[in-house]
Amino acid sequence: MKTSRPIGIFDSGMGGLTVVKEITRILPQEDIVYFGDTARVPYGPKSEETVIRFSIENILFLLKYNVKLIVVACNTASSVALPTLKKHFKIPLLGVIEPGAEKAVGITKNRKVGVIGTKTTIKSGAYKRNIKENAADVNVYSASCPLFVPLVEEGWFNHPITKKIAYEYLDPLKAKGIDSVVLGCTHYPLLKPVIRQVLGKNVALIDSAKQVAQQSRLILEQNNLIRKRNKSQVAKVRFFVSDEPENFARQGSKFLGVPLHDVRKVSNV
Amino acid sequence: MKTSRPIGIFDSGMGGLTVVKEITRILPQEDIVYFGDTARVPYGPKSEETVIRFSIENILFLLKYNVKLIVVACNTASSVALPTLKKHFKIPLLGVIEPGAEKAVGITKNRKVGVIGTKTTIKSGAYKRNIKENAADVNVYSASCPLFVPLVEEGWFNHPITKKIAYEYLDPLKAKGIDSVVLGCTHYPLLKPVIRQVLGKNVALIDSAKQVAQQSRLILEQNNLIRKRNKSQVAKVRFFVSDEPENFARQGSKFLGVPLHDVRKVSNV
Repeated sequence: MKTSRPIGIFDSGMGGLTVVKEITRILPQEDIVYFGDTARVPYGPKSEETVIRFSIENILFLLKYNVKLIVVACNTASSVALPTLKKHFKIPLLGVIEPGAEKAVGITKNRKVGVIGTKTTIKSGAYKRNIKENAADVNVYSASCPLFVPLVEEGWFNHPITKKIAYEYLDPLKAKGIDSVVLGCTHYPLLKPVIRQVLGKNVALIDSAKQVAQQSRLILEQNNLIRKRNKSQVAKVRFFVSDEPENFARQGSKFLGVPLHDVRKVSNV
Repeated sequence: MKTSRPIGIFDSGMGGLTVVKEITRILPQEDIVYFGDTARVPYGPKSEETVIRFSIENILFLLKYNVKLIVVACNTASSVALPTLKKHFKIPLLGVIEPGAEKAVGITKNRKVGVIGTKTTIKSGAYKRNIKENAADVNVYSASCPLFVPLVEEGWFNHPITKKIAYEYLDPLKAKGIDSVVLGCTHYPLLKPVIRQVLGKNVALIDSAKQVAQQSRLILEQNNLIRKRNKSQVAKVRFFVSDEPENFARQGSKFLGVPLHDVRKVSNV
């Protein structure tokens, strides 16, 4: 049946699990196939051309599972590859930029929004462009935070050094008087306590995962693709990675919030 | 002519340029073909199986240039892939572990040697094994320093935060009373000033690049492959990368010590 097909989600690594978490929360009846490209992670410092090539390979992998929607849960890929991907593929594709940008526009009161992300995400200007398209009067201040991903991967979520680095990256944004900041990388929600300490409690931290889950539901509704399932059936969430399945299962539970089983190593190329 | 073939060198990124620098110094007449796998960098956090696959692809790329010797200028690949590579390929292959281990054994007076590197390098135990094979009485103390590579890539060579992180990683080694430490990653020589500050002036910092260059000369001599060239001819050094050639040229000059031209983007898969 058309509606019983799974939702496909990919990311460069495990950050996209924050999106899985929200989708399983508001669409608990849907099966999910997740692919994390852990053999080629990170995408952040790589070129547009290369990120597009990797994204296409990830999509071709997910299409083998007959998915009905693909969520590009990687900010870098959403920033630089999504327009090309939408041109090539028929399947509905949802990135994480647009939902995050919309949420920021809805939240900001003083019309000063910060955006943080990897080098490639910030350099692409995708968030700024999207926010401006939604509300031309909003001022956008951006900062790339290249050490945040390795710090999360090192597990230094609340380490004093992480706090010092956060000050270094975020002080210039704070000085601009922003009242909200888009966490433009799926790793960053794990640094929320530190980021909140640095920016203060009056700055809203925008984590697009929830918004992405809501848009996913909307797209499925619009396409009559919502799965109907009786409550006794349990949805199937499958995880595939291109490297290090054990590490993904171990570390990934921090992103997912629950233990993670059944991670399989596959080749996507 | 057999001797006029170039030397091939590969690394996951640009760290191997420290090896290029030393080889051009002591073998200035030799042509070099360098490949940096910048589309899939870093290798440090990836599995043995994946690093072996990437290394084989890099070697197959270099073999197209009819190289006479291949230097595996990446510590992670040398640690986990070299035995397999030597089994498969006929061409002489030289890694960076053995030369570094030999040098450490020659330098240490109190028989207490430190080794620092990426997670995969340290986990492999390759340095420890090599040092013990050379001198069973030497005690080896290891520490992985996962944030050093991103710090170098961020350009924070002398940043106060880099110093703090260095203390965090190196204090346990210092407490063991080591008199020398192997810089088991080609990025680390760029952090020498900070590492020296933390470990003190009495700890020798062992950078295997020089030793690798000397072994390269030895292998060429033993195989009658040293190039004879008259002084008016200039050796050709060519650089290939799988991504971001401009960035490689810009950042790479820090490793090479001279400006870097003619970097070409290619696919190695």
